[in-house]
Amino acid sequence: MTAVKDSVHDYISLDPVAAELVDTPAFQRLRHIKQLSTVRLVYPSASHTRFEHSLGVYHLASRALSHLGVDGDRAAHVRAAALLHDIGHGPYGHQTEELIRRRTGRDHDEIHHLLDGTEVGAVLTDHGLDPDRVADMVDGAGGLGQLVSGELDVDRMDYLVRDAHHTGVPYGTIDHGRLVRELRYRDGELVLAEGNVQTAESLLLARALMNATVYRHHVSRIAGAMLERASERLVDDGVPIEAFVRMADHDLLVALGERVPDLGRRIERRDLYKRAVWAPIDAVPTDVVELDYEATRAAERDIADAADVSPESVIVDAPSRPRIKESRSRVVVNGVVRRLEDASELVGALRSAERTQWRLGVYAPEAVRDEVAAAAVDALGLPVRVTTPV
Amino acid sequence: MTAVKDSVHDYISLDPVAAELVDTPAFQRLRHIKQLSTVRLVYPSASHTRFEHSLGVYHLASRALSHLGVDGDRAAHVRAAALLHDIGHGPYGHQTEELIRRRTGRDHDEIHHLLDGTEVGAVLTDHGLDPDRVADMVDGAGGLGQLVSGELDVDRMDYLVRDAHHTGVPYGTIDHGRLVRELRYRDGELVLAEGNVQTAESLLLARALMNATVYRHHVSRIAGAMLERASERLVDDGVPIEAFVRMADHDLLVALGERVPDLGRRIERRDLYKRAVWAPIDAVPTDVVELDYEATRAAERDIADAADVSPESVIVDAPSRPRIKESRSRVVVNGVVRRLEDASELVGALRSAERTQWRLGVYAPEAVRDEVAAAAVDALGLPVRVTTPV
Amino acid sequence: MTAVKDSVHDYISLDPVAAELVDTPAFQRLRHIKQLSTVRLVYPSASHTRFEHSLGVYHLASRALSHLGVDGDRAAHVRAAALLHDIGHGPYGHQTEELIRRRTGRDHDEIHHLLDGTEVGAVLTDHGLDPDRVADMVDGAGGLGQLVSGELDVDRMDYLVRDAHHTGVPYGTIDHGRLVRELRYRDGELVLAEGNVQTAESLLLARALMNATVYRHHVSRIAGAMLERASERLVDDGVPIEAFVRMADHDLLVALGERVPDLGRRIERRDLYKRAVWAPIDAVPTDVVELDYEATRAAERDIADAADVSPESVIVDAPSRPRIKESRSRVVVNGVVRRLEDASELVGALRSAERTQWRLGVYAPEAVRDEVAAAAVDALGLPVRVTTPV
Amino acid sequence: MTAVKDSVHDYISLDPVAAELVDTPAFQRLRHIKQLSTVRLVYPSASHTRFEHSLGVYHLASRALSHLGVDGDRAAHVRAAALLHDIGHGPYGHQTEELIRRRTGRDHDEIHHLLDGTEVGAVLTDHGLDPDRVADMVDGAGGLGQLVSGELDVDRMDYLVRDAHHTGVPYGTIDHGRLVRELRYRDGELVLAEGNVQTAESLLLARALMNATVYRHHVSRIAGAMLERASERLVDDGVPIEAFVRMADHDLLVALGERVPDLGRRIERRDLYKRAVWAPIDAVPTDVVELDYEATRAAERDIADAADVSPESVIVDAPSRPRIKESRSRVVVNGVVRRLEDASELVGALRSAERTQWRLGVYAPEAVRDEVAAAAVDALGLPVRVTTPV
Repeated sequence: MTAVKDSVHDYISLDPVAAELVDTPAFQRLRHIKQLSTVRLVYPSASHTRFEHSLGVYHLASRALSHLGVDGDRAAHVRAAALLHDIGHGPYGHQTEELIRRRTGRDHDEIHHLLDGTEVGAVLTDHGLDPDRVADMVDGAGGLGQLVSGELDVDRMDYLVRDAHHTGVPYGTIDHGRLVRELRYRDGELVLAEGNVQTAESLLLARALMNATVYRHHVSRIAGAMLERASERLVDDGVPIEAFVRMADHDLLVALGERVPDLGRRIERRDLYKRAVWAPIDAVPTDVVELDYEATRAAERDIADAADVSPESVIVDAPSRPRIKESRSRVVVNGVVRRLEDASELVGALRSAERTQWRLGVYAPEAVRDEVAAAAVDALGLPVRVTTPV
Repeated sequence: MTAVKDSVHDYISLDPVAAELVDTPAFQRLRHIKQLSTVRLVYPSASHTRFEHSLGVYHLASRALSHLGVDGDRAAHVRAAALLHDIGHGPYGHQTEELIRRRTGRDHDEIHHLLDGTEVGAVLTDHGLDPDRVADMVDGAGGLGQLVSGELDVDRMDYLVRDAHHTGVPYGTIDHGRLVRELRYRDGELVLAEGNVQTAESLLLARALMNATVYRHHVSRIAGAMLERASERLVDDGVPIEAFVRMADHDLLVALGERVPDLGRRIERRDLYKRAVWAPIDAVPTDVVELDYEATRAAERDIADAADVSPESVIVDAPSRPRIKESRSRVVVNGVVRRLEDASELVGALRSAERTQWRLGVYAPEAVRDEVAAAAVDALGLPVRVTTPV
Repeated sequence: MTAVKDSVHDYISLDPVAAELVDTPAFQRLRHIKQLSTVRLVYPSASHTRFEHSLGVYHLASRALSHLGVDGDRAAHVRAAALLHDIGHGPYGHQTEELIRRRTGRDHDEIHHLLDGTEVGAVLTDHGLDPDRVADMVDGAGGLGQLVSGELDVDRMDYLVRDAHHTGVPYGTIDHGRLVRELRYRDGELVLAEGNVQTAESLLLARALMNATVYRHHVSRIAGAMLERASERLVDDGVPIEAFVRMADHDLLVALGERVPDLGRRIERRDLYKRAVWAPIDAVPTDVVELDYEATRAAERDIADAADVSPESVIVDAPSRPRIKESRSRVVVNGVVRRLEDASELVGALRSAERTQWRLGVYAPEAVRDEVAAAAVDALGLPVRVTTPV
Repeated sequence: MTAVKDSVHDYISLDPVAAELVDTPAFQRLRHIKQLSTVRLVYPSASHTRFEHSLGVYHLASRALSHLGVDGDRAAHVRAAALLHDIGHGPYGHQTEELIRRRTGRDHDEIHHLLDGTEVGAVLTDHGLDPDRVADMVDGAGGLGQLVSGELDVDRMDYLVRDAHHTGVPYGTIDHGRLVRELRYRDGELVLAEGNVQTAESLLLARALMNATVYRHHVSRIAGAMLERASERLVDDGVPIEAFVRMADHDLLVALGERVPDLGRRIERRDLYKRAVWAPIDAVPTDVVELDYEATRAAERDIADAADVSPESVIVDAPSRPRIKESRSRVVVNGVVRRLEDASELVGALRSAERTQWRLGVYAPEAVRDEVAAAAVDALGLPVRVTTPV
């Protein structure tokens, strides 16, 4: 059996299907898509990729299936789905997800088109697997799909531990060994066995702390927003969206450097915009919190006009309201399956905490930060105190 | 400079005072007191001792002082206090703390008598340090004492990480590097610098998860309660309390094996009592939750009578109500020092969660568990459902 | 399936036989025998025990068997042997091995008597296992026994990694994942598969570096020699050797403190003898290198007489000549099974290096070190330069 | 003080010069140069970069200087040199080093031109540092330069540990804490203090095992050779060598994909050449072992002609004879400074082992491997047995 050495899970044994899938260009491309996109501008060791993450998800799925006693054909489909769950990502992963969704209508976990008549699809059918069923599972369909994409999926278990290993931030170090062992099926739904409310909570808490410290670090958010705007301009400049989607990180970085050099070079050299505004949710009018894409872009233009700077010099970054997907995970408590949010006192508090940590950002080059701050406060109806000192 | 290799902090450099203190019998005795007493009956790798923990606390104190810019005489006192903070522990640490308190009136962090006219005291005075001041700091006195014993003390930072390393349970893996760097003094109080609400929360969360998974694991609680009762009988049997206090773990284990063999041998061989009752706080009458020592012993006798078993066969274990000391830690938020409980949404939820996890235990040998369960339900006014199935 | 959390291998699943064996007093006793005896006087974190080590060996054996495709009855015997391989150890493990061998003729891996008519034996037969066959495997018999005790055994793989984890000395961190995967049977002998000369070498190198840095550290050797002499006196003082063999560490420590207090208290407080002589092999006459036990004791008495100190004040510590058992391990090279010593250039060099590191020690209390040094040089025919400066 | 979180050394504090140097484009470029170039095609987690490695080297230099008692101006120059030691690397680091040397005459540690009149140079002079002196140190000049580039340099200490962390191969996990503490200056030369022969050996052994397992893995060597040839063709195709040198990994990968697509796409997709020949040194005529660049290229053309394949289909990869730089490191033994090769029995054996592991490779696309193998055996005068089976 082929085995790959991994810095997180040690040796990962690949079954024959997996070994062939790994060799396809569509999977090898994941070597060139970093797991944490712009986070490594804050945590420099975080240059790991979706390639090793996908192997890790495959590994945890295999172990979970073995503990669950699922084998044969059903298990083979789940393992393939686990391995392939990220091949739908564009360059820089989640950072370009919105752009791709707007232009193609597809999310990254919609991968039917990547398995239909492709080399990946051929490997699956050669081994007697049904590509459609695999793609459905990547999208979370069915009880087994929940293992790949759901409240208790192995995707999250791998990335938390892996991101902790590579950033050096320990908060993500969950007990994946226990999680994988305590999964059960009850009435076709994936649940955690009796006695695991804390196990489920630990997953939530790990993600909450990683959110605050790593995933939503303001430097990474700024770089990410710059990358999004630059990508938008690249596509507007004539790069077909389907070509864009197939790019890897290095393709995008070079393309931006050549065709959107003002932002491209800045990202490459970590010469980033600064925060002109950094506003908590209570200081932001509801209609601003809920701005859609078009309205955001319009606001940027208004602010740029008012500040008398170029439109490219203003980025408004209003994240969607926080959701805590894991709060819906199921745990057996005194013999009854319950949603974690009903079984845990912590879920509500975490929801409030996430709300408290939400920030509206307005970013601009350092030289024009003050002007942009003043204009943004005015245009968005914000209190002056949310502008950041130079 | 003397250096000691530690599995958690790598090399720990000892200043000349520390190097001499380490060589005193009072400190060497800590080699023979396990950090987690009976926890290793659940997590077998957890046989680390208060010796290396004390070195770790000394190390973190040194680093914190260096970041805080405290040096000279003041720092020397803090470092000595950090090193010596656990020499007041009896055998099996916290497990015999209550017994010692009842018999001597002293807590383990009251160590004046161990520095007065002793070898340890002589080392301190030889190096120009004031033993009384050191003992006061061990007890948490003054702003500097807060570093040794307080809401943000380095004691907790060391034990969480060390216990995680040795149990294999990752939840305690806090970011002590960050915590130590972000400490500040404001108006003489130890606080965490701006931007560290999550850092403070992470400390709380780590301890909450370690509590549930490690420190209060029911097997460890049962063994601990057996050890307490056995120790009580040993002292009643004629071992002077001051001799008892000076024992190390091995002395106590041998003494119990010889003089309280029914319990002593059971502990040694992990042949433990079982839970006859395991009741959440909402199922327990308030006066039972608040039973003092004498009333608890009386209840045990009543239950034993009713169940027609020997009095030694019943242990009632009603832990004190949970406190979350760290919730009082101070953090700078928008320039103002605030208590964490006022700055964090999580503290309240953690308090509720701790309450939810509280359990009254009644333990008995497996052979008489049913009889004891029935008698306990009756004697303590509990609902029948809290008895545990065989 | 019962699972135990381990700080080295994470969860260890126990099969039903193992779960019952673990509960026997003979196995629980291993909780009280430290893996590295006196090493923790140098590396304070090294207080792990033969209990968790035995679980680790069981775990690696299970994984190796699974990779080797061995299952059923044969595998069950190997797993039991792996679990039980250390139950024949006396208190403080290897440190009392010589004494026990001299008095009983038994080595620690001779455990037939511990399986014959005992609780452990009963568990084995209840599950259809043959105690004799298990005991034979512990002694290394047969191809499967080589997995438990041989040049490529899982015992060594576990202790190197575990000792590294607990001492903090990284040299023992071998790639056990790879070793376990690359084992094969060829003509009934355990070998490493093609392409693993370096894998085999890495095991040798890890042990060589751990020897020099950890296992043979002079402070540990001094404490170990003191413990041996003290144990000898304890047995001479009337403790029956069969009672001695059954002691655990704490029993011995307390017994020494009471009945051989001069040495016992010193060991407990790490108030150790010092090196009067520390001589490399080239400076020591061959007949001294090869002194047997009686001759060593006679030499001690002679030196004590000449130095005019009490006979208990002199310890002569002449280790046996170094052997490198792993050098006999078998590796497939170009399709042919070869001994590592024939396939690796490093083995010869390591042998020389081990010889270079060999030291004859003569130890004495600090106050009489000079007198003992002078007398020892004279009595043993050594050059003066091997005495150590005060 | 600015601090950066690192997955290997935890927080790294940057002095003001370092903080400014890090922000220059020349240093930020290191974010885009992977530490182990093509090794990640074998060990997928190994995508760490020279950026974090450089921070690590800076960190270890700071700690070593502090233990050595070197401070002030001299220390400031060493720290700057440590931080900047890799800015002279071309894309894919060592993989393009030969090509750059042939075309520019410069090695990667010759960085005077990168400090002369540049932004980096300006930061240095602004802080009163002498760019020439820093560049000299990067090249190993002077006793202090030995800390940056020499037999005992902190560069090697960082990369061994970091590569182990990211590949998951444990062999590189040296005791850098001890190494850094045991450095001394004797007569202006950097040495290891008394009692550290094994410490020095451990460094050698770690590198020897990492060489065999990681750095010279044949898959990485094949991909590296393909990258070298492709880069050569890119420069021949008109990319100015000075532009080439300034490229980062992503620039090169995209350029190769566009301008040398046959090799470029293969590297990107890990669709690599296979070994037609893999010959140990004893099977290779001396003049082939010592082939220079021009002769190697000529041999490739001859083989291609004979095999009737395109010249691009044959790569001859004859590594230079192994050197063990660390064998010249200095250690104090019995008060005298000695070269490690004179103090350690292992060095000679390691030299032999390195020689044994040397391999001549001839690589070709899988489809023509047999023809190329036959032609190569003929053209290079090799025995037939060194061709690899299909």
